[in-house]
Amino acid sequence: MSQAFYIEQTPPAKRTDCHQSDPAAIIKQLYDSETFRLLAQVVVGRLSDHLEQVQSRNGKVMTARPPRLNLLDARAWLDAATAATPSDARTLADRAGTMIDDLLANSQRLHHPGYIGHQLAPPLPLAAVFELAAALVNQGMAIYELGPWTTAVEKAMVERLGEQLGFVPGSFSGLVTSGGTLANLTALIAARNKLLGDAWSQGLTGLETKPVVITHMESHYSIARAAGIIGLGAEQCLYVASDAAGRTDPQALADLLDDLKRRAVPVIAVVASAGATRTGSFDPLPAIADLCEHHGIWLHVDAAHGGAVSFSKAHRHLIEGIERADSVIWDAHKMLFVPTLSTYLFYKNPRNKYLAFSQDAPFLFVEDSDDAHEFDCGLATAECTKRAAALSLWAVMSLYGGSVYETLIDRICEITALFVAKLAAIEQVEMPVEPQFNIVLFRYVPERPDIDVDAYNKALRAFIVEDGSLYLTTTTYRGALYLRFVVMNPLSNETEVEALIEALTTFAARHDGDGDAAFAAERTGQSHLKV
Amino acid sequence: MSQAFYIEQTPPAKRTDCHQSDPAAIIKQLYDSETFRLLAQVVVGRLSDHLEQVQSRNGKVMTARPPRLNLLDARAWLDAATAATPSDARTLADRAGTMIDDLLANSQRLHHPGYIGHQLAPPLPLAAVFELAAALVNQGMAIYELGPWTTAVEKAMVERLGEQLGFVPGSFSGLVTSGGTLANLTALIAARNKLLGDAWSQGLTGLETKPVVITHMESHYSIARAAGIIGLGAEQCLYVASDAAGRTDPQALADLLDDLKRRAVPVIAVVASAGATRTGSFDPLPAIADLCEHHGIWLHVDAAHGGAVSFSKAHRHLIEGIERADSVIWDAHKMLFVPTLSTYLFYKNPRNKYLAFSQDAPFLFVEDSDDAHEFDCGLATAECTKRAAALSLWAVMSLYGGSVYETLIDRICEITALFVAKLAAIEQVEMPVEPQFNIVLFRYVPERPDIDVDAYNKALRAFIVEDGSLYLTTTTYRGALYLRFVVMNPLSNETEVEALIEALTTFAARHDGDGDAAFAAERTGQSHLKV
Repeated sequence: MSQAFYIEQTPPAKRTDCHQSDPAAIIKQLYDSETFRLLAQVVVGRLSDHLEQVQSRNGKVMTARPPRLNLLDARAWLDAATAATPSDARTLADRAGTMIDDLLANSQRLHHPGYIGHQLAPPLPLAAVFELAAALVNQGMAIYELGPWTTAVEKAMVERLGEQLGFVPGSFSGLVTSGGTLANLTALIAARNKLLGDAWSQGLTGLETKPVVITHMESHYSIARAAGIIGLGAEQCLYVASDAAGRTDPQALADLLDDLKRRAVPVIAVVASAGATRTGSFDPLPAIADLCEHHGIWLHVDAAHGGAVSFSKAHRHLIEGIERADSVIWDAHKMLFVPTLSTYLFYKNPRNKYLAFSQDAPFLFVEDSDDAHEFDCGLATAECTKRAAALSLWAVMSLYGGSVYETLIDRICEITALFVAKLAAIEQVEMPVEPQFNIVLFRYVPERPDIDVDAYNKALRAFIVEDGSLYLTTTTYRGALYLRFVVMNPLSNETEVEALIEALTTFAARHDGDGDAAFAAERTGQSHLKV
Repeated sequence: MSQAFYIEQTPPAKRTDCHQSDPAAIIKQLYDSETFRLLAQVVVGRLSDHLEQVQSRNGKVMTARPPRLNLLDARAWLDAATAATPSDARTLADRAGTMIDDLLANSQRLHHPGYIGHQLAPPLPLAAVFELAAALVNQGMAIYELGPWTTAVEKAMVERLGEQLGFVPGSFSGLVTSGGTLANLTALIAARNKLLGDAWSQGLTGLETKPVVITHMESHYSIARAAGIIGLGAEQCLYVASDAAGRTDPQALADLLDDLKRRAVPVIAVVASAGATRTGSFDPLPAIADLCEHHGIWLHVDAAHGGAVSFSKAHRHLIEGIERADSVIWDAHKMLFVPTLSTYLFYKNPRNKYLAFSQDAPFLFVEDSDDAHEFDCGLATAECTKRAAALSLWAVMSLYGGSVYETLIDRICEITALFVAKLAAIEQVEMPVEPQFNIVLFRYVPERPDIDVDAYNKALRAFIVEDGSLYLTTTTYRGALYLRFVVMNPLSNETEVEALIEALTTFAARHDGDGDAAFAAERTGQSHLKV
């Protein structure tokens, strides 16, 4: 915030003066194409330098200050604004550059190869550039006419990704929506409306038997959340037992379905995971699909994270049978490396696209069916106004082809395998499930039996993150605390594998003999670290 | 698509060859900072030229080809992709530039001053540049640590905009979410959960009395949609009568509430509009708030479009009393001129932020309450992963101050008033409601009594859009078809006002004496125009 804002006016004009002074000049400058070009040049320069630095492993993966400090600074920028026209584009651009510096200095650095944190991808820079174009043209997407090109692009991408999963070309439908939670919700509304004929118009009040949703033991919280939202009740989510590999046990599912049938409990849907959020496990879809077909129950597959393995000849067996699902979601902003939010929802039966929201908006959908109706996204998506969320993936796949994702996914799996092999070689390391893709849970179990293993691993995580060359998280699985990492960055390599092993060894050498008190000391100053 | 993709390889490598050839080189190039800089430079150049041209009124506002043609071209780009490494950054950038050309040639041109179409803003170019930064850093936002800076920015903006509406500093809460539909849904889930104690966990099944939502006669379709989603039933939306100005009639609301009380029907919420989607009408909030307070009913205000008048001393009277609402939504991507989607949801009672989704996600929210919890967006938003959707508005307000919105809103109102004055001066023009902000309905009623007025106005609209210097839409209001326009572009001026009047005059001179057949002829080739 060291940039001087005014260079032509002394003293600065007052807030009220400005407004009355020259509105036309202010508006002209706001939309000026040359000012845009200069601003973009400065910001792109900052972002490009950032990419180069973090990819070279300069600096920590994360330097999160306590929230209050960032809040104070974010407010300070707002308070420093003055009301006069910033008549000098150069000054404006420099000031914008300094704001970008603050953003970059205080963000998680997903492009740092040491980022093995959450299921957030380091976006392909090319994809981010197309997001800029989408943001500037700001098409509406509810009906074709609001975004003729971006709507067509969405349709082309729905076709392409659906076929990639294995749906029969021309026989399915789909849409793009704002994130996995909204996509899971949309699919479950469709399934609810299908099972309970007048649920959309009449609601669920008055139903005598409470329906249920059956889901993977470690399914994403958006599934239970959807049950809470759609009037079913979050507690109407039944969780099926998993096997040792963290996959839904088909026999347990069969038993559950038989029991529900005996008790005449309606089942809205069975939700399978590919892969499950916490463990990355992929469900045995063929066996689950058999059961759903036998009972006539809607099968929904949450492939938000795992859909991308469809691009890899070596790994697509993990989602075998996915094309038998009634609905599938897939986040392009996860393992397809485009910026958030861009989620695809597919329906095996194309007409089911209209099941979720059976409604009209007269100001949008004026005329009766014609050729364009199937291009009117708003009939099938929760959103009315929507982002052109398919554009950046379309750009990547048009410039590089789908095979680029085979390259990326195979590399991610290769690095994950390296992590797993090195960890497995350490006797004290315990991995509760065998990693199938790129999510790994592990914990270090010190030899001394009186050490609190959860506290030890919490402290271990803090030690690793504090060092700054790696960023990973923790989670609770079957009652115990584990370190959890997700290999999201194709630039991660042996350096990160060695850094992790080195951190384990160093921490163990220091603490294997300690009591719990020492771990607490490690965590000083980390009160805002929670995962 | 005339650019040659390969310049170094002859013949092109085959798809499978590529993948095996040099994955490391492909990945390096994908993330290369210099390639990013070049790509961005080319794309920014295209966008800057586009801005200059459309703002100079060059070309039509919209040139929407039939959907199939755009789909074929979008597919053609995908099919033209080859699997080899595009080793030449320049070639890649040129190809990306050509893709941007296709996007710009086939999009609605919101920055054209003749765009008076839907409630989609021409985004401030500065805001789009910050969207690029947000897209590249791709922060997660569910908990503070996933996006330390962008989370703090969101919190600062929630404070700032909430205070702008009139909420007492420090006494309210809020969040940013992906669009008005999701925000209205979230508010109504909160209201439902408040009224029906265990609705979240137990659902609505078994309730003996069906609750209702009361809403403005012309409320956005997302309100009825929310009722359909949350298990209440879309038909449980009751619409209150409006007065001649299209505003909810407080007496009609009072009568309805009394009647429901007598019949012991629970009311989830009263939804008021500021302004209503179809007509732009602003409800009398003080009178409605009085009634809601008297009956102890949740008042939700949909100010998606109208919240921005709070910045204007001349127009903020339209939302007088909004700070008495239990919840309010406001789309920054409408009249605050940032790209979609960026919607603010405010709760008067700060604790109500946690009412909608009373759940945990163990892999995210590990520890118990500490200072950072109020920064964890995921506890209050539908989304888990979320865009940094407050960043671009924060940039605008930090660089220009909030007063820039007074300038923009006042200018929008000034131009709207000019349109209205000129239209009102034409005897055959009928306006069903007096425009309060920037949404205008009108129709031309030819003197000959045997002309189908709806068909005439539909043809008039097609005539205007086909000419290309203006883009507006139609809607149905109280059983009749009207032309509808929304002044969204602060660069619209007398040129557009005169073009509209000229179009009316020309069309009338040609058709006032015609029968209906002539209108049909006007519409040749416009089958994909629907609004």
